[in-house]
Amino acid sequence: SNDVKEYENYFGMTLLDRRSDKRTDSEWLSKKQSHPATVYILFSNLSPLVTLGGGRESSQQPEVKLCRLCHKDVEQCMNQTEECTLIFLGVDLQFDMNLMAACNGRFQQEDEDGLVAWFALSIDSASAEKFKQKHEDCYFLHPPMPALLQLPEKEAGVIAQARSVLAWHQRYRFCPTCGSATKTEEGGYKKTCLKEDCPSLQGVHNTSYPRVDPVVIMQVIHPDGNHCLLGRQKRFPPGMFTCLAGFVEPGETIENAVRREVEEEAGVKVAHVQYISCQPWPMPSSLMIGCLAVAVSTEIKVDKNEIEDARWFTREQVVEVLIKGNQRSFFVPPSRAIAHQLMKHWIGMNANL
Amino acid sequence: SNDVKEYENYFGMTLLDRRSDKRTDSEWLSKKQSHPATVYILFSNLSPLVTLGGGRESSQQPEVKLCRLCHKDVEQCMNQTEECTLIFLGVDLQFDMNLMAACNGRFQQEDEDGLVAWFALSIDSASAEKFKQKHEDCYFLHPPMPALLQLPEKEAGVIAQARSVLAWHQRYRFCPTCGSATKTEEGGYKKTCLKEDCPSLQGVHNTSYPRVDPVVIMQVIHPDGNHCLLGRQKRFPPGMFTCLAGFVEPGETIENAVRREVEEEAGVKVAHVQYISCQPWPMPSSLMIGCLAVAVSTEIKVDKNEIEDARWFTREQVVEVLIKGNQRSFFVPPSRAIAHQLMKHWIGMNANL
Ligand SMILES: Nc1ncnc2c1ncn2[C@@H]1O[C@H](COP(=O)(O)O)[C@@H](O)[C@H]1O
Ligand SMILES: Nc1ncnc2c1ncn2[C@@H]1O[C@H](COP(=O)(O)O)[C@@H](O)[C@H]1O
Repeated sequence: SNDVKEYENYFGMTLLDRRSDKRTDSEWLSKKQSHPATVYILFSNLSPLVTLGGGRESSQQPEVKLCRLCHKDVEQCMNQTEECTLIFLGVDLQFDMNLMAACNGRFQQEDEDGLVAWFALSIDSASAEKFKQKHEDCYFLHPPMPALLQLPEKEAGVIAQARSVLAWHQRYRFCPTCGSATKTEEGGYKKTCLKEDCPSLQGVHNTSYPRVDPVVIMQVIHPDGNHCLLGRQKRFPPGMFTCLAGFVEPGETIENAVRREVEEEAGVKVAHVQYISCQPWPMPSSLMIGCLAVAVSTEIKVDKNEIEDARWFTREQVVEVLIKGNQRSFFVPPSRAIAHQLMKHWIGMNANL
Repeated sequence: SNDVKEYENYFGMTLLDRRSDKRTDSEWLSKKQSHPATVYILFSNLSPLVTLGGGRESSQQPEVKLCRLCHKDVEQCMNQTEECTLIFLGVDLQFDMNLMAACNGRFQQEDEDGLVAWFALSIDSASAEKFKQKHEDCYFLHPPMPALLQLPEKEAGVIAQARSVLAWHQRYRFCPTCGSATKTEEGGYKKTCLKEDCPSLQGVHNTSYPRVDPVVIMQVIHPDGNHCLLGRQKRFPPGMFTCLAGFVEPGETIENAVRREVEEEAGVKVAHVQYISCQPWPMPSSLMIGCLAVAVSTEIKVDKNEIEDARWFTREQVVEVLIKGNQRSFFVPPSRAIAHQLMKHWIGMNANL
C-alpha cells in the first residue's frame, strides 16, 4: 500500500536520476549542453513552456505536455540573453543512447556515456516573446495553479525540481550574509558570494544552497473518529475546504508543528500525530508533510487572521465529495493534491476498521 | 509507543508555548520585555550562557543549565550594544503569574495576563566578555557540539528554537532579492527589505522568514533483515559510525531523498522507506527526518567525496554497542541523537518479530 501511495504522489515522481555527482564535472556538463540528444525545458518567469498533446484516451480533456527542446532550439536564446539561468536536472532514467544505438545496429562514439541529460533554461520575457512567435504551438503555462496539475505525472516531478531551483535563483540573487553579488556553480545548485572576505566562504553554509520549506498538512480526526476538520482561506474559491496546513518553525518537530498549527488556526487540541506521506509543492519550494492527527477537543475557535472558516465534516460528507463527486455542499482540492490523498486515506482507514 | 518516542526527542520538547499571535502585538512585546518576571536567555556567537547545576542524582556528571536572566540583568547590555538581536520565544507552559499570586493570597494588577514571556538575546563579543566578568559562575557553552547535548531535556528545545532563529539572523542580514539592508519584525521571526521598491515587498516570500532545512537520516536494513548499514565521515572521531543522512533537495519526496542519498553515498539500492520520527537539529537549522529503509542490494560502493567508510553491521554488533555499551570495535552517537534512536528502534522492532 506504501507503493501505491508513492505512485500516486504527483510532483514526487520523476523521469530523471539527478546524478548530483555530475554537478561538479564541468567538462561533462558543457559537453552535454551541446549534445544533440540533450533535452531542454524552457521557463519564463517560473512558467514552463508546454504544448497540447492529443486528448487522453479516457477523457475529453486535452493533455498539456512539456516541450522537450534540443540544443539547437535554445542556442540562440542562450547566447543573446544575459539574464538566463541554466539548471542541470539529471539524466533520463529510461533512455540510454548506447542501448538505442545497439538496438539499431549502430555503434556510439568512444567518449559517449549514453546518458541523456536534461537541463532547465529560464529566459527573460523579451526572449520568451520571440520564442513563442517562432514556435506557434507552444505557450508558457500561466498562472501555475491549477494549470501545473494537468501535466503528465512524471513530467510534474521534473517541473517540481526545476521550478523550485529557478525560484531560488530568482529570489536569492545576492549574498544574504553580506549583500554582494553571487555566482552560480554546480549545475545551478550552488551560489557563491563574489566578495573575497565574506564569512559565507568559510565553511559550509545553507546560504549557498537551494531552500526547501517543510510544511505540515494534516487531516484532523474528531475524537469520535467519524468527523474530520477542514478549513478554508479567504483566497480559496467559494465552497472549497481542505486540510489545515502551516510552515514548520525552527526548532520544532513535525508532530509539534501539527499540534501548534491546529490549535492556532482552529483552537482544537491534537494529541496523536501520524505521518502518512509527503509531496513536493513547487510554489515556490515547499515540502508538504502529510499527517493524520487525532483531536482531543472539539470546540472550534477560528483565527480569522489565518483562515476564514473551519468545520467538522462527517465521514459521509467526505465520502460523498471524494468518491461520488457530489460537490453540492462543498468541494475539496483535486486528487493530485496531497490534501485529497489524506482525506482518501482517512476514509479507507476507517473503512478497514 | 509513539508518546515514548516523542518524549525521548531531545531538542524536540520545550518549556514554551510559542504564541506566534503575540509576535505582531508590539505593545504586548514591549511591556513583557521590561516585565520583572520575564526570562531572558543570552547568546554570544550562537553559544548560550549556562551555569553548572548540582550533579544529577543518578550520575557523577555535573549538569549544565541555561542561565535564566531577568530584564535588570540584560538591560545595560541591550542599551549599550547596537549589534544585539532579540527573539521572542514564547510563554512558559508551566508558570502562570496569576495562579502563583492566587496561591500566595495576593492579587495581580488588572492589566496582567499572567503569562511569563521568554526572550533570547544575542550580544556581541565585547559585551559578552563584560558580562562574564560580572557573572563569574556563568559561561558561554562552546563549541556547541557535543556540549549542547548535556542540557536538561526541556531546555534543549528552547535552545533549538533560539539558536536556529539567531543563526538565521547572523547569516541572513541582507535582502537576498536585492542586496539591501533589512529590518527585523514580528518578535524576530520576520525580516523585511528596507528598499522601497524591492520585489520581496510584494506578496509573501520565504526570503522574509527563517529557514528550516529538511534532512533525511536513515537506518538502512540489509535484505536479510539482520544487518544494518552504518557509515562514517572523515571528520568523525575515530571508531564512530552512524546512520547515513543528507539534505532533501527541491522537488523531492522524503522517500526519494532517502533512496538517492543511500545510493549516492554507499551504492546501495533502497526500496521501502518508512518514517519513524524526527528531531530538530540546530546546527544551524535542520529538521532531521528519521526513517527505516529496506535495501534491495548489498554491495557497498563508498563515494569518498561524501563519506569515508560504510559497512554492514550485524544486529548483535549493534545490540552490543547500544545496550551493553561495549564500544571496543566501534561506537555510535549518544542516545540524544536521532541516529541512536533509529538504531534502537530497529533492534526493538526486530526483537518483536
Ligand atoms: N542546506 C544546506 N546546507 C548545507 N549544505 C547543503 C545544503 N544543501 C545541500 N548541501 C550539501 O551538503 C553538503 C554538506 O553536507 P553534510 O556533510 O551533511 O554537512 C554540502 O557540501 C552541500 O553540497
Ligand atoms: N517560509 C515561509 N514562506 C512563506 N511564509 C511563511 C514562511 N514561514 C512562515 N511563513 C508565514 O506563513 C504565512 C503564509 O502562510 P500561507 O497562508 O500558508 O501561505 C506568512 O504570512 C508568514 O507569516
